[in-house]
Amino acid sequence: MARKPTPTPTPLAPAAADTPAHPREPGPSPRAGLTYAKAGVDLLSKDSFTEGLETLLRRTHGPRVIPNPGGFAGLFRLDYNERLFARNYKDPVLVACADGVGTKLRLAIELGVYDTLGIDLVAMNVNDMIVQGAEPLFFLDYIAIGKVDRPVLDALVRGVVAGCQTAGCALLGGETAEMPGLYQPGDFDLAGFAVGVMDLDRAVNPIRVRPGDVVLGLASSGVHSNGYTLVRSIVRQAKLDLHAPAPELAPAPPKRAARPSPKGAADTPTLGQALLTPTRIYAPSITRLLRSYRVKKTVSGMAHITGSGMSGNLVRALHPGVDAVVDRAAWPVPPLFRLLQRAGGVDEDEMRRVFNMGIGYCLIVRPSFADSIAERLTKLGETVHTIGKIVTGSGRVIER
Amino acid sequence: MARKPTPTPTPLAPAAADTPAHPREPGPSPRAGLTYAKAGVDLLSKDSFTEGLETLLRRTHGPRVIPNPGGFAGLFRLDYNERLFARNYKDPVLVACADGVGTKLRLAIELGVYDTLGIDLVAMNVNDMIVQGAEPLFFLDYIAIGKVDRPVLDALVRGVVAGCQTAGCALLGGETAEMPGLYQPGDFDLAGFAVGVMDLDRAVNPIRVRPGDVVLGLASSGVHSNGYTLVRSIVRQAKLDLHAPAPELAPAPPKRAARPSPKGAADTPTLGQALLTPTRIYAPSITRLLRSYRVKKTVSGMAHITGSGMSGNLVRALHPGVDAVVDRAAWPVPPLFRLLQRAGGVDEDEMRRVFNMGIGYCLIVRPSFADSIAERLTKLGETVHTIGKIVTGSGRVIER
Repeated sequence: MARKPTPTPTPLAPAAADTPAHPREPGPSPRAGLTYAKAGVDLLSKDSFTEGLETLLRRTHGPRVIPNPGGFAGLFRLDYNERLFARNYKDPVLVACADGVGTKLRLAIELGVYDTLGIDLVAMNVNDMIVQGAEPLFFLDYIAIGKVDRPVLDALVRGVVAGCQTAGCALLGGETAEMPGLYQPGDFDLAGFAVGVMDLDRAVNPIRVRPGDVVLGLASSGVHSNGYTLVRSIVRQAKLDLHAPAPELAPAPPKRAARPSPKGAADTPTLGQALLTPTRIYAPSITRLLRSYRVKKTVSGMAHITGSGMSGNLVRALHPGVDAVVDRAAWPVPPLFRLLQRAGGVDEDEMRRVFNMGIGYCLIVRPSFADSIAERLTKLGETVHTIGKIVTGSGRVIER
Repeated sequence: MARKPTPTPTPLAPAAADTPAHPREPGPSPRAGLTYAKAGVDLLSKDSFTEGLETLLRRTHGPRVIPNPGGFAGLFRLDYNERLFARNYKDPVLVACADGVGTKLRLAIELGVYDTLGIDLVAMNVNDMIVQGAEPLFFLDYIAIGKVDRPVLDALVRGVVAGCQTAGCALLGGETAEMPGLYQPGDFDLAGFAVGVMDLDRAVNPIRVRPGDVVLGLASSGVHSNGYTLVRSIVRQAKLDLHAPAPELAPAPPKRAARPSPKGAADTPTLGQALLTPTRIYAPSITRLLRSYRVKKTVSGMAHITGSGMSGNLVRALHPGVDAVVDRAAWPVPPLFRLLQRAGGVDEDEMRRVFNMGIGYCLIVRPSFADSIAERLTKLGETVHTIGKIVTGSGRVIER
């Protein structure tokens, strides 16, 4: 889409990002007569939106992001000659993912909550990439909307910034497309794109998985970003009230809280809030964990639990010589899923096929390291359950 | 979105891509009761769509794409240790772009032509990245649609494949999101993400531009991908018939044709076809040109002409000490733009601000190399015009 006139260009130089790598670009300027403005595209609004973003984006930039004000693309230096890069990566492979957030955004639009979808967007991309041992480097986003709405766009990008900060990747830039007629008033879509790097000989690879390995599950934060078409169908058919406080969904007190959080109505989430809870980003924990265990290769496989549930995703970490036997009773299913199940009359197998049911990420680990890995992940902030084991088999996930 | 069960996993190995890096993924399987299928998501259709794509994607894969069947992400080896990479890039910088095709897709949907939008999508991304001297490496796409329509999706991806083949980048994968309710029947949106690489010390940088430099313009193939909201407004208001043959738009006979193409009604494009002509991808010419002139730095700046027209884009190649003086009469404006201008009663300045008016890409070059660069680009298949010059100034583009 059209770009804005460049501010004072800075010679390309690494580090010390005084200006952002890639501000969003507005369209052509409006004029009299049959013009863009009369055709429905409001460009001044988009201009000021773009300029306000620069500060936001900068929060995610580390020393490898090269300022490129007014440039057409975001720049990320690989530190090819830096000792740090050379020490970490002998045979670097770039890993790239693209993903959206699915119909969770319809729920967000209904509830008017826009600042968490960006976290889901980052999560869906980086959680996929870390599965093979890649470390996220940078992210770009695409937002398409019918009519520029500054507060909405601002909130969306703030969410992406927050997600990138958590994931430890640089938000290099993005594209905001105003598409009158393609989107109904108030509607929009989001797409995200992440690039990471991993060392080829340390990549996590299904062939490593052995009978005897243990399956660990990391708790999800909620529904995450899959299954929302069914969620919304249940909400509609059962006439659930998204705005009513749902005490049965109140979170357990946080682990190691300095003091217990005060109880009261203010703490009770509504069903809508619980459903919109952003997808947990596992990248910081997994990246740090793999740095500890890097040489020993004690993690033989991982899976991000998205659509198709546990079985549909864990299966991708297996090879045809093994099965994963998962014990459904090995972790508590959060009340939110039971609420949806009851309201929709959904049978257990269908629930398990569509939803994560409380486990958002799995690791398959060598049995003698299972305890220490679980402990390390717990210290890194995850809630860890031992949920199954690997046996000789034929590449299936068996849930009991 | 949900992933399909993995086929027999192959150990990660570089080169010889027998299977694609990243097949598209379908959603969970349909079952009785309140299920995904009843909620409106048709997954079997998406499954078979996904499998058919693998062959298509493979056409774009070179030796650096690592097969990753069933994996969560596309993999691209940097050849860190290969002599080729080490010889070409001392200080590699990754360049990343995100872009859509804008409301050109509304026109394509109206006309039922889906196999060229993918070319526009690739063009909008890679044409931006080459402006700084980057070479495209890989591409991912995101398609969001209300209801999976296999022929439409197939055509869309075929277009992306064709664009990637022209641009010389690998289509690593993509995401297809089925979003009932967000899109009207028959509607969809496209987003593309491209990553390239360039050497930091050879990057094209505005500070190089000097008074006396010459501005070359490369002909566009048509409207490209900006201004379509105005185009559609003109078509509606002037009641233009998109399906009528428009003889005034018939292309000139190709240069150096072995024999002239036979004249006749079959060659006459309709207005719709002319408007849908895909954006020209300048990457192969520019990449080859820069390899020839790499040491001499005879190209001091470049610009991809998108929204905001010539002025809005060429200005980004300048620094505050120079102006670019562009002679509007220095190249022929293609008849398509005059047709739109007359039909819409649009004044010249507005046309120039919104449309490319026949020039899709500009290079600023050292005067003593202008002729040889123009000749080289012509041999590479471009139509080249000398359209202006650089003078001492204040960072403006002055069109006369």
